[in-house]
Amino acid sequence: MKIIVTGGAGFLGSRVVELLLQRLDAGDPPVPFEEIVSLDLAECPVADRRVRSVVGDVASPELLEEEVTDDVVGIYHLAAVLSGGSEENFDLAMRVNVDGTRALLEAARRTGARPRVVFTSSLAVFGGDPPEVVPEEWAEQPDSTYGALKAVGELLVNEYSRRGYVDGRICRLPTISVRPGRPNSAASSFASGIVREPLNGEAAPCPVPHETRMWLSSPRAAVANLVRALEVEGELIGAWRGMNVPGISVTVGEMLEALERIGGAEARALVHDAPDQAVMDIVCSWPGEFEVQRMLELGFVRDRNVDRLIRQYVEDFAPGAGRPAEEHDDAAPAAREA
Amino acid sequence: MKIIVTGGAGFLGSRVVELLLQRLDAGDPPVPFEEIVSLDLAECPVADRRVRSVVGDVASPELLEEEVTDDVVGIYHLAAVLSGGSEENFDLAMRVNVDGTRALLEAARRTGARPRVVFTSSLAVFGGDPPEVVPEEWAEQPDSTYGALKAVGELLVNEYSRRGYVDGRICRLPTISVRPGRPNSAASSFASGIVREPLNGEAAPCPVPHETRMWLSSPRAAVANLVRALEVEGELIGAWRGMNVPGISVTVGEMLEALERIGGAEARALVHDAPDQAVMDIVCSWPGEFEVQRMLELGFVRDRNVDRLIRQYVEDFAPGAGRPAEEHDDAAPAAREA
Repeated sequence: MKIIVTGGAGFLGSRVVELLLQRLDAGDPPVPFEEIVSLDLAECPVADRRVRSVVGDVASPELLEEEVTDDVVGIYHLAAVLSGGSEENFDLAMRVNVDGTRALLEAARRTGARPRVVFTSSLAVFGGDPPEVVPEEWAEQPDSTYGALKAVGELLVNEYSRRGYVDGRICRLPTISVRPGRPNSAASSFASGIVREPLNGEAAPCPVPHETRMWLSSPRAAVANLVRALEVEGELIGAWRGMNVPGISVTVGEMLEALERIGGAEARALVHDAPDQAVMDIVCSWPGEFEVQRMLELGFVRDRNVDRLIRQYVEDFAPGAGRPAEEHDDAAPAAREA
Repeated sequence: MKIIVTGGAGFLGSRVVELLLQRLDAGDPPVPFEEIVSLDLAECPVADRRVRSVVGDVASPELLEEEVTDDVVGIYHLAAVLSGGSEENFDLAMRVNVDGTRALLEAARRTGARPRVVFTSSLAVFGGDPPEVVPEEWAEQPDSTYGALKAVGELLVNEYSRRGYVDGRICRLPTISVRPGRPNSAASSFASGIVREPLNGEAAPCPVPHETRMWLSSPRAAVANLVRALEVEGELIGAWRGMNVPGISVTVGEMLEALERIGGAEARALVHDAPDQAVMDIVCSWPGEFEVQRMLELGFVRDRNVDRLIRQYVEDFAPGAGRPAEEHDDAAPAAREA
């Protein structure tokens, strides 16, 4: 029995693969499985004999038909053209984010095995003028191509679930911060950059006003939640499979204050305002907070506060950073708020 | 300059064609045009030299590319697999309702002319447990294939509009009652049948509980609203192009009481309860009332009450029915409620 991870070479995908293997090694896999198949344009970086990398186009129906066989118990669909890229290249976004998702769902349907499908969506599905705290039944009126096509994906995953073709779990992830590495094509990439670059001694532009409220999740909490999404019984989620994954609500100004507390005034001074209308048009239409009580009751987790979020980056990724003893308990499960 | 009507042979489509021609003859077309092209599996029944029927598959990209040329100023996209049919044949519904809509939008985009596109959606996009009166920003969580795929169509029309490829107008129509003719494959077909059949002296099954609340529009009001949707300036609709078209909120029991007032006890006695779980599963998940004040301010109309709705059927369609003088003023524009 196997789990498929599209985007398994990516940042979240490879970490999901790692956590799935850890859970298997601990005798507590979210679903019983023996193998993980990564489908991506690149090799999955996790070196483990139980991981098989299939390098190719994740939107290819032929490839999906070959790999999505009736021994598939779970599918993570993480591969997508991101928000900046989708705005720039509508046709590519349609092909990968819509046609690719549909081809994957069709392949899963044809197995007849009704596998669990974890689909990552985004708070970009919301737009217009959302309330300060967004309830579970707030309309999706996306203001971006990425959001619109993720909303289409949500409807398809939900409908394939309702018809019993798959057992879908739609995870609207918060903005992930702090990501390591270089900026990516997501319009929200700055939400990592304004912390990561200064901590590495580099200058970083801040493209949005400081009062912009962000809905954030550390990589650890996001990965823990993606594994939880595979594990939770479908009946507990309910008929509608959309879920607002917990995050913390923080303004950009509060992020910069936390940066100063942790990295010092010299780190804070490396961030300069550089308003970018294209980024603002996308990011400022996203809600800054969601009702997540039901999700917390379902066993999903969130970070404790923005300082922990930044310290987690320092621990896990910052070059040469030590791992302070008092932070050892800050693993994702402990990050759950009651 | 031409207007394209997919589904132009259908009940609403052919009546939209008629009203468009009437408005042109009166020197007051909703947009300037000279020709109407009906795209449907059958000939448009409107005999007028300005109407051209193209008989074919409305989901065919080749046909759409040929007909949707840069002199198209308006497109009505009414052709769809209905609710009952979509539930029964998922793959056909995907092909016609999703792929067909997308092919039409692509053809419109390629003209570069940014035509106005009126897309008919449905209250079936809503599901779950909606409030008694549904606000404009209530989440679409469809409980049916028809609803899910109409919701996908809405997102596509809106996104193509946001990107400036078309000027979209999404009309979530109420259930149309009273339709003439025979039952169709819509799960809500009974909402016409329980009035129409008894008025024609035939028995009719009632598949849902009498307390089921329906959101109804007469054909006249619906057609007037579809023409208004083409006419209204896009800027007045706002960034989000979804619109809950006005209707009246009536229970099935109230419909039967009105039937008795208009058709007598013998007509009422022809309706018998015949609970149908498949119909209930679909129809009882639809909301029974919507906030429509903004729509009324935009010039959309609704029927005065359920008695007028039934009398309209008697006037327009019932075999041999006279047209009482005092009802002459009940044309669609007069049906607007202040």
